[in-house]
Amino acid sequence: MLRNTGVQLLPADIAEQIIAGNRVVLAQAITLAESQRPQDVTLAHQLITTLLPNTGKSVRIGITGVPGVGKSTFIEAFGTWLTSQQKKIAVLAVDPSSSKTKGSILGDKTRMEKLARNPNAFIRPTPTGNTLGGVANRTRETILLCEAAGFDVILVETVGVGQSETTVRNMVDFFLLLLLAGAGDELQGIKKGIMEMADAVVITKADGENKKAAALACANYQQALHLFNAADSGWQPKVLTSSATENTGIAETWQLVQDYMEHVQTTGYLEKYRQAQNRNWFYESIQTQLLQKIALSEKVNANLARFESEIMNNTLLPSEAARQLLTEVFRGSI
Amino acid sequence: MLRNTGVQLLPADIAEQIIAGNRVVLAQAITLAESQRPQDVTLAHQLITTLLPNTGKSVRIGITGVPGVGKSTFIEAFGTWLTSQQKKIAVLAVDPSSSKTKGSILGDKTRMEKLARNPNAFIRPTPTGNTLGGVANRTRETILLCEAAGFDVILVETVGVGQSETTVRNMVDFFLLLLLAGAGDELQGIKKGIMEMADAVVITKADGENKKAAALACANYQQALHLFNAADSGWQPKVLTSSATENTGIAETWQLVQDYMEHVQTTGYLEKYRQAQNRNWFYESIQTQLLQKIALSEKVNANLARFESEIMNNTLLPSEAARQLLTEVFRGSI
Repeated sequence: MLRNTGVQLLPADIAEQIIAGNRVVLAQAITLAESQRPQDVTLAHQLITTLLPNTGKSVRIGITGVPGVGKSTFIEAFGTWLTSQQKKIAVLAVDPSSSKTKGSILGDKTRMEKLARNPNAFIRPTPTGNTLGGVANRTRETILLCEAAGFDVILVETVGVGQSETTVRNMVDFFLLLLLAGAGDELQGIKKGIMEMADAVVITKADGENKKAAALACANYQQALHLFNAADSGWQPKVLTSSATENTGIAETWQLVQDYMEHVQTTGYLEKYRQAQNRNWFYESIQTQLLQKIALSEKVNANLARFESEIMNNTLLPSEAARQLLTEVFRGSI
Repeated sequence: MLRNTGVQLLPADIAEQIIAGNRVVLAQAITLAESQRPQDVTLAHQLITTLLPNTGKSVRIGITGVPGVGKSTFIEAFGTWLTSQQKKIAVLAVDPSSSKTKGSILGDKTRMEKLARNPNAFIRPTPTGNTLGGVANRTRETILLCEAAGFDVILVETVGVGQSETTVRNMVDFFLLLLLAGAGDELQGIKKGIMEMADAVVITKADGENKKAAALACANYQQALHLFNAADSGWQPKVLTSSATENTGIAETWQLVQDYMEHVQTTGYLEKYRQAQNRNWFYESIQTQLLQKIALSEKVNANLARFESEIMNNTLLPSEAARQLLTEVFRGSI
């Protein structure tokens, strides 16, 4: 273990192990990157900085869809097929609710049983950590660690709750929306704005009795997508149907990803987009770390009780109390 | 105008005007409270602190419901009826999307035409301000200003998008959920958790052909609400039907609010709940103001370009850049 033995590995040594494909060290490095302890954060940052030249070579794919759409089944089929094409794949799950249930590691491995046993696949859920919202940053660091470990395709799964799609969209190259052919109204039930973020839509469970409805939904969505303005990438989103049980639409989905990657590499969009994502990551980190700093600040905590009692007595406006507290704490320092 | 003339009114003078019921000064004070300029914030805080002894005497009611449920129509009917009972009412709208459209003031006044002309009603939308999320604080300050101006009932309307219900729930005494009797599945289409926040549910448009379905929905929801644990207030949520056009369920809704207020005043819950809300407001303000401070900090801005260029060159991890920036800025100060 990186943390629990007396032996202190240097970041360079750990980096070497990760590049060599040592899964145990990779898993421990991810745990380190997810830690909140300042010394762990420093070590993780040193490690990933060392690894930066080895990152950026994977295709980063975000996958979203409402519960019931068959996300795990699709990822299992897609991932298994990719490994059959000599690709090494990593599956990361962004689950804002997992901090409550704590059960997601087991959950993820159970629901993608076949993939979990595949030597060329690596499945890892990302816990949200604390409420100050470090989830995005930690998953980004995990992506870099997996890239350094030689994974060719990184699948980042989001559960489709709240802001998680936007979060994931901001850390991947390609964003895939899974949809179910509904009974009747095909365009219902999709959160506003998600459709606009998608580079491709896959209609799942296109088999048996569902096949016809899926084909119809496919045509409808393709038409609907034409109504949107072209994305900044200049890429026109495509719609496909897929059946995980009949293994259809899987190779086609990968072909679409490859077409997209060729397009954005040729136009230079990919490089610019990733740079913009890193800039965004920087600003998000400033906010997150700032809030953590203040939560841990002794100067702040020493003053809280006094302000709280004035607020309870209704002699001080809460927003004014915040202003006075911050003015005292930062007296001239920012 | 408080800001645009050479005449500097003192907070005490403005406060006097507001207490005397001067609507023009009230509107300007709200604008002041919504301002981002540090000198306006200071003045607004002084003003509201002066007014604190005159606040807290209204009934604060939050109203939510999806678009199409007839929220404006209900508020117009409910508000008009309240004024007929010699109540002075203020309607505040929390609209996270209004910063984009900018049209909500006109929109609000048009859609509540009758109420807007009523001398005992005051309608005011709250713009979201900036993305750093000051919306909740500003609406809270507006509530206090309206209370000082003598309004008996404050209706805070939310459009039912994203986090706005939770935001509004945290600033009102009583939370009212409007629902439509759906075709068939009555319990669909309500965002998870909203139901648990409601002190009452009103089934709208309970007239004509819809009457029967509304009565059925009413019974179903009443039953569903019994499945939840009792709220901290010890209040058992009630369900009503209402028709704004036939003016049914309006007086009954107010009776319910009064029953609730009597309950929470007797048990002492109201006082504790408002104190907890103020404490929450304080912590939210710390976060919001901290992020504003950092965005405006010269020390931060002077260092940004250097870090950004290292990030663009992929020689520095974005989260590590944030750590270094904050360490430099706050060297020993927090």
